[in-house]
Amino acid sequence: MDYERYDRVRAVVWNGEALDLLDQRVLPLQQTRLICRDAGEVAQAIFDLVVRGAPAIGIAAAWGLVLASRPVQAQDGPQAVAALAQATQTLNAARPTAVNLAWALGRMNAVLANAGTDWREVLANEAAAIEREDLAANRHMGQLGAALIEPGSGVLTHCNTGSLATSGFGTALGVIRAGVAEGRIGKVFAGETRPWLQGARLTVWELLQDGIPATLIADSAAAHLMSTGQVQWVIVGADRITANGDVANKIGTYALAIAARHHGVKFMVVAPSSTVDMHTASGSDIEIEQRSESELLGYAGQRTVAEGVRAWNPVFDVTPAALIDAIVTERGVVLQPNAQRMAAIWPCNDSR
Amino acid sequence: MDYERYDRVRAVVWNGEALDLLDQRVLPLQQTRLICRDAGEVAQAIFDLVVRGAPAIGIAAAWGLVLASRPVQAQDGPQAVAALAQATQTLNAARPTAVNLAWALGRMNAVLANAGTDWREVLANEAAAIEREDLAANRHMGQLGAALIEPGSGVLTHCNTGSLATSGFGTALGVIRAGVAEGRIGKVFAGETRPWLQGARLTVWELLQDGIPATLIADSAAAHLMSTGQVQWVIVGADRITANGDVANKIGTYALAIAARHHGVKFMVVAPSSTVDMHTASGSDIEIEQRSESELLGYAGQRTVAEGVRAWNPVFDVTPAALIDAIVTERGVVLQPNAQRMAAIWPCNDSR
Repeated sequence: MDYERYDRVRAVVWNGEALDLLDQRVLPLQQTRLICRDAGEVAQAIFDLVVRGAPAIGIAAAWGLVLASRPVQAQDGPQAVAALAQATQTLNAARPTAVNLAWALGRMNAVLANAGTDWREVLANEAAAIEREDLAANRHMGQLGAALIEPGSGVLTHCNTGSLATSGFGTALGVIRAGVAEGRIGKVFAGETRPWLQGARLTVWELLQDGIPATLIADSAAAHLMSTGQVQWVIVGADRITANGDVANKIGTYALAIAARHHGVKFMVVAPSSTVDMHTASGSDIEIEQRSESELLGYAGQRTVAEGVRAWNPVFDVTPAALIDAIVTERGVVLQPNAQRMAAIWPCNDSR
Repeated sequence: MDYERYDRVRAVVWNGEALDLLDQRVLPLQQTRLICRDAGEVAQAIFDLVVRGAPAIGIAAAWGLVLASRPVQAQDGPQAVAALAQATQTLNAARPTAVNLAWALGRMNAVLANAGTDWREVLANEAAAIEREDLAANRHMGQLGAALIEPGSGVLTHCNTGSLATSGFGTALGVIRAGVAEGRIGKVFAGETRPWLQGARLTVWELLQDGIPATLIADSAAAHLMSTGQVQWVIVGADRITANGDVANKIGTYALAIAARHHGVKFMVVAPSSTVDMHTASGSDIEIEQRSESELLGYAGQRTVAEGVRAWNPVFDVTPAALIDAIVTERGVVLQPNAQRMAAIWPCNDSR
């Protein structure tokens, strides 16, 4: 397929000299780019949510380490690892809960430890490889996922899993791009995704850039939408997939899975292997992150809720494997996931 | 019980000269009242959502007809009916889905048709009766509904069904008031209720006025909340209940009912008999009101979504009777509603 036609947005761009980030805090009303010239600026941008989405954060951090290496004088890789320890630490601390961040920095340091005098080139090549492999994985997942979709289907997605959240193409949104390109998907719906509104602010904007019209709905309208017969697949990303195929993802995913099953709508999770955590047995072992009540008490600094009101703000939920029809990764598709089928692709000692 | 202690807010007040409405568009940050002096102003206030909630709309429309009668010269009731036909039509057209609006106007016109020279007094008395009966019905429903709840339960509600939506006490929120007063309800959760945020702006505010702490959640977090075991009942209102027990209510209700059934959480609908429409066979015969896309393109008046994005904004959905454990009305409780059990309380020729 003509990938570029359906994938015009790039949130994280290495321009050979600096890291050029699309500022996702002000999208879609402003399209501003932020140029980061050292690792501290990259760390700050990750912390400030200029760049978000686990894969995109990992890629940004990798380039941040390349920026950090500029002033470093080192004879070989091991010396560079030591010299870059502080920068690695700073980048890693920007969002300590994002697993891809630590993963990308670990991978960068691992190749560096084995590098010789050409360590600068090795480091830059590894950052480029992380980025390139992410894009390739997304395109491959797009094809695998789209192949499951009957031509003429309508789909619903949640949160933002697109080019803004990755090196490009996206995970769940990559499947939607591929499905649209192949004529399998006739209509795309996107939930607003309270409380951060990633669907409303990012997903529908990103698709619009590629000429893919998407219809925004309130999260609470999804079940009613399914009852009208306009949706055949719900397609979402994942923050973590456990050994039994349970999926932790943005709050609201679980409600969509329950409603989908009730209506006979299929449910697809799309995520790279780096999201699979075979060391965690099931979703019940995942601690659900609670964020500030303030996210539900107003928007953009404007308070909407009375003083004195309390809120409960879990930002992830767990969808049990039994409600999932397909987990799509770059290693292949797991249909009707369970522990056995997961282990067939990710043997116990090879979770990543 | 001490009703006044748990019910301090009044949204629709006839002051003897004009209709005094609490402007629900600007709650909870401002408490502003709007005085309507003719039927056109009342119709506009209903359309603009200054006053909302099916019973409150019916009561407001009844007083609107009283206001419309002021300049009318008529010898008797039948002449007044003819003279008020245009005003009746205008008020009736303000909102399409809520049956209470047509019901209240029909009841007003029916008594008027039988009135003599004292038709003005008859009309005003009828509006007062509609309001008084609504409050009495709500208090009775509160007792009936609360009796179904095991002591120590947690409950989740949606939208606003309280004093703001009725003459006072509320329907679903009346059951919650009664349940709290009786010590049956230990914890109250309220969904934000996108797109208009009635839960976030109104319900938690209203409960706070009466000293009932409620915890706000994103609508999409309800299923996750149920999975934690903190909720034993979902308690909602209704805009229309059809002959088979299907319920049209605020968008998101249907999703809650599906999630409740999935978790073994009970689902209660609380609404006065005026909401029951025995002339409509089932929910599939109900016209679902679609409102402006703009309600989804911003948040609390601030635009959040890119230009060019389309949205789908149905503001009601239909919950099938099979997902409902109890319909509570002032005439009694229908457990596991179906057409036969509905007809036992509302015989075919006596739907209201």
